[in-house]
Amino acid sequence: MFEKRANRTEISDLGEFKLIDLITEGIEIQQETTQYGVGDDAAVLQFNGNEQVLVSTDLLVEGVHFHLDYVPLRHLGYKAVMVNLSDIAAMNAQPTQITVSLAISNRFSFEAIQELYEGIKLACKKHKIDLIGGDTTSSTSGLIISITVLGKALPEKIVKRNGARENDLIVTTGDLGSAYAGLLLLERERKVFEKTPEVQPDFSGFEYLLERQLKPEARLDIVSKLHDLNIIPTSMIDISDGLGSEILHICHQSKVGCHIYESKIPIDIVTNQVAEDFRIHPITFALNGGEDYQLLFTINPTDYDKIKDDDSFIVIGHIMDEATGAQLITTADTAIPITAQGWDGFRNNQ
Amino acid sequence: MFEKRANRTEISDLGEFKLIDLITEGIEIQQETTQYGVGDDAAVLQFNGNEQVLVSTDLLVEGVHFHLDYVPLRHLGYKAVMVNLSDIAAMNAQPTQITVSLAISNRFSFEAIQELYEGIKLACKKHKIDLIGGDTTSSTSGLIISITVLGKALPEKIVKRNGARENDLIVTTGDLGSAYAGLLLLERERKVFEKTPEVQPDFSGFEYLLERQLKPEARLDIVSKLHDLNIIPTSMIDISDGLGSEILHICHQSKVGCHIYESKIPIDIVTNQVAEDFRIHPITFALNGGEDYQLLFTINPTDYDKIKDDDSFIVIGHIMDEATGAQLITTADTAIPITAQGWDGFRNNQ
Repeated sequence: MFEKRANRTEISDLGEFKLIDLITEGIEIQQETTQYGVGDDAAVLQFNGNEQVLVSTDLLVEGVHFHLDYVPLRHLGYKAVMVNLSDIAAMNAQPTQITVSLAISNRFSFEAIQELYEGIKLACKKHKIDLIGGDTTSSTSGLIISITVLGKALPEKIVKRNGARENDLIVTTGDLGSAYAGLLLLERERKVFEKTPEVQPDFSGFEYLLERQLKPEARLDIVSKLHDLNIIPTSMIDISDGLGSEILHICHQSKVGCHIYESKIPIDIVTNQVAEDFRIHPITFALNGGEDYQLLFTINPTDYDKIKDDDSFIVIGHIMDEATGAQLITTADTAIPITAQGWDGFRNNQ
Repeated sequence: MFEKRANRTEISDLGEFKLIDLITEGIEIQQETTQYGVGDDAAVLQFNGNEQVLVSTDLLVEGVHFHLDYVPLRHLGYKAVMVNLSDIAAMNAQPTQITVSLAISNRFSFEAIQELYEGIKLACKKHKIDLIGGDTTSSTSGLIISITVLGKALPEKIVKRNGARENDLIVTTGDLGSAYAGLLLLERERKVFEKTPEVQPDFSGFEYLLERQLKPEARLDIVSKLHDLNIIPTSMIDISDGLGSEILHICHQSKVGCHIYESKIPIDIVTNQVAEDFRIHPITFALNGGEDYQLLFTINPTDYDKIKDDDSFIVIGHIMDEATGAQLITTADTAIPITAQGWDGFRNNQ
């Protein structure tokens, strides 16, 4: 971090074909649904007729979604894939393939792109995802990453945002706000580094927060657990923009309200400490911070017994009627309306 | 063209949700394979178990792939979709769904993005394609469009680049080089406009070339015709980078050589005239110009009788053994090796 590499091969010296050959080197098909991957006008997949196919896509822009002065390219590649896998997990489904398109300015060497792909390939390997295609081109400024993910599931297993019903329990799968705490720490150190480059940042004690920011994990383990426990959530979403924004999506699309209990929202102890340092209420990190990539779902109360002994599942509230609206019940037992103040790419860039 | 619109709504005033609501307004599902489109973490598709699924993706960057000073946004949207549909046509398959991701700088108003989407929707409507998802975010500079297309075909109908065999006939589906001629004309007028903005360009007589550049059509009609004629090409590709580059892909992947006859390559009469004006040999337009989006395919000679009376099919050469290499046989009956000099995003940007 905070340094430049010495080796440099210009991408223009390789040409597009050679570049694609090099970055797709060593890719082996892992999924039985993949018939034919990289190398023609289109990839070819064969799904079982009983399975439905899921598709989601994300576009990441340098200077808007990531800053390369404190995000190593390998982590960026890993995270870009995980963010997409998380969208498929959020439908209670299994991701199977991705396409990766890059626009690269001539600031980037081949070695830099190779590092990015190492992260992409590592994320794919972890979840047996096939990289089946993409497009690699130049940009006039910066790096742009566009990933599309495909997945599969039996139709009766797919969970949308619109199925939450009154009295359902609201569940999340891990502590919230840590990725945002990690981001604040990285940004603070970047400012220090800009003024005094000789001072190397000391992040000891904060490793967990940095990992949550730089190397998030899609909760596909939760999808497996739900399957094993024979639970199909009534609604589900992944927490990319903050708990506040996501629960509003579920309430809005399910036409319901909710009570979320401040005292139940899981927040890591170091995240609490960072929030205090920055003089921000830790609940704000959880509600508005974003990039947690935990799952947020609702279950029928009759399923509660199946999850109550498992630490992965944290019940943080329950669904109310629509007239109640979405409310945070504070530790002082007052009800505050939840509003969405998550990431907004358009405002970030003003 | 060459003008600015008066109405302007800032995208940041709308916010992402409202923007997505507005641009996805009026989208109706056309394909029986689409179960659920825009509005959740992922779209859901259901393919017939006999069909295979095709996936392709393209990334278009302002200043590299298009210049908005002479490409109207509506045309850009239309073309961005067609380019992707063409990739599915090039596999002898039927496109069914697209996702569209945009990164937009704050230079663009909502009205501008609406125009872009009008073109996207028009292209979708023409071929009954469902727009099932995407991602809309800000960019630090310029416009970036990432489209992923899905399609379907029976496995035995899918045509790759690697099936050409010695003696197969090489066929294309319309005149080549016109899109490039259109591009040169637009660029010339842009330079005139920069110096003397009061002079409006006069493109009369060149409408066909401009249309080929600004509003290309994916040759899905050819896919239907091949089906009706009961022809399955032995190899196929679409001509996006110029005939030279594409025939080399087929030869390389099929491990064969070829003879292409200069006299047989279809070139429009006005394209010939523009080439003369620019003092470039018209065959260079066809070989290296690119963006024609005609199909290039090979058929077994026994299929010749089925196509010989149809003007849509133009036989331009035949497949040779690998040792011969890929050669252009000129009108003077000399053999010149074909080299790839098509579009190269990386060099364009140096």
